[in-house]
Amino acid sequence: MENTTITEENLTQLVLDTNNAANPRTKQLLDKLINHLHAFIKDAEPTQEEWLRAIQFLTNTGHTCDGKRQEFILLSDVLGVSMLVDAVNHRYSEDVTESTVTGPFHTDAKPFPMGENIAKGDEAGRGAPTIVRGTIRDEQGKPIKNALVDVWQCDDLGYYDIQDVNQPEQNLRGLFETSEDGRFWFKTIKPAAYPIPNDGPVGDLLQTMQRSPMRPAHIHFWIQAKGHEDLITHLFVEGDEYIASDAVFGVKETLILPFVLNEDSEAAEKWNVPSPFYDVAYDFTLAHSKS
Amino acid sequence: MENTTITEENLTQLVLDTNNAANPRTKQLLDKLINHLHAFIKDAEPTQEEWLRAIQFLTNTGHTCDGKRQEFILLSDVLGVSMLVDAVNHRYSEDVTESTVTGPFHTDAKPFPMGENIAKGDEAGRGAPTIVRGTIRDEQGKPIKNALVDVWQCDDLGYYDIQDVNQPEQNLRGLFETSEDGRFWFKTIKPAAYPIPNDGPVGDLLQTMQRSPMRPAHIHFWIQAKGHEDLITHLFVEGDEYIASDAVFGVKETLILPFVLNEDSEAAEKWNVPSPFYDVAYDFTLAHSKS
Repeated sequence: MENTTITEENLTQLVLDTNNAANPRTKQLLDKLINHLHAFIKDAEPTQEEWLRAIQFLTNTGHTCDGKRQEFILLSDVLGVSMLVDAVNHRYSEDVTESTVTGPFHTDAKPFPMGENIAKGDEAGRGAPTIVRGTIRDEQGKPIKNALVDVWQCDDLGYYDIQDVNQPEQNLRGLFETSEDGRFWFKTIKPAAYPIPNDGPVGDLLQTMQRSPMRPAHIHFWIQAKGHEDLITHLFVEGDEYIASDAVFGVKETLILPFVLNEDSEAAEKWNVPSPFYDVAYDFTLAHSKS
Repeated sequence: MENTTITEENLTQLVLDTNNAANPRTKQLLDKLINHLHAFIKDAEPTQEEWLRAIQFLTNTGHTCDGKRQEFILLSDVLGVSMLVDAVNHRYSEDVTESTVTGPFHTDAKPFPMGENIAKGDEAGRGAPTIVRGTIRDEQGKPIKNALVDVWQCDDLGYYDIQDVNQPEQNLRGLFETSEDGRFWFKTIKPAAYPIPNDGPVGDLLQTMQRSPMRPAHIHFWIQAKGHEDLITHLFVEGDEYIASDAVFGVKETLILPFVLNEDSEAAEKWNVPSPFYDVAYDFTLAHSKS
């Protein structure tokens, strides 16, 4: 930039010219970031005050993050960015189970024996008893044994353990391994719809946009199996009032399924759950590894 | 979004459809943000790992901000965003003095009588004595009386007071008011080139891009006068080795000026400074108020 004066017209190229990142992918990502950021500024023409408000918003978002809260993931979620990243990374055949956002509430779960009840706290007696069961399959429909099924969900009041001092640690989380025939099952309670954390900058943004912070009730799954791509998805409770207005745009029709109320006391006895109970059955199909 | 499944194709519009911000400008800014953010994701196609690294980078940037450090402003500066925002807000005639970035080091200065020495600490005896003088004019060339000239700069080692516990508070800052003939002057020391704070995420980014964190030596000005637009600018020291590679893209040719060494001891006596001293003279022209 010897003897060059910065102008609206030459600035973007001058910034691009300084990007000498050694890793070609890093260089490419930064080039694209610079191009799109500058395009946004040229299109929006923010005033200095608007720009400073944006700086303050990002700063507050950072300050809201701690070991248990990830406000930047929430921001990405409510702007549809997380689902878009998910989409561009999962261009599979229709046979493969659809993915959705990871969300900010995943933590490493303990391995449990098949059939364990993951509801360990007060809500175990309070919530609606539910069994969740299914088979993990490959793209040819063949069951996958020893697949890891990592599940996590909120309680009947809509809180995850890491948000709620009244829940025991690792509540409503569990890691299961499929049997020889590719099956898994566990006991839990029916999850509730809940608002995403909305007492921070992202909550203020939703209010500004006149949007609801609610997510429809769901159970999270992170499924891993050798030779296959990870599948991160939810199962949504059919009939939930927020199914068409998820604050993070995570709902896909194929992931909505009935929580079937089973009032047969013999069935309850067979599964060793109180009667009546909800029965949720879903088969997941994983994509073969890309690499 | 009743009965709609999220796809790569429809997601951006679905997110836009949720933006019901009451203030039309807020709605417009958020619409443009959503559009450009999604365009960036579709263009860059980040992997989940790359996206998570970006989330972590933003989180670390937020955590690096405190009352005395604004890492997001630095980030905006090194990506050329601050200068672009500056440019789109200052489309004036050629007669008006060019603006540049505010930077993260401005704090409210104390009013000083004309001619005050703003170097209050050890560097007052250590740095090169300098006088800075000029006239504030309107677009017709008429001097403006009672204009406020807010100045701030680093010391001879490249540190601002708020970065350096060895400097007295409010060191190398001052607020001057122009006289009837539109003039101001003050004593100081010659500023040094310095690296922007580079022990945080922005420093890591610069290293990744193989860029220098150095800024050429300069003095900051924020000039305010009734009936005129604020002028935020720097004067750069001609001949500085970093003049062509400013880490924040702030240099404009019209703002580079000679720090003239005056070895005449009578002149030093007249200005009441040690001999020899640097003499810096510049006239600033403000734009008439837009509103």
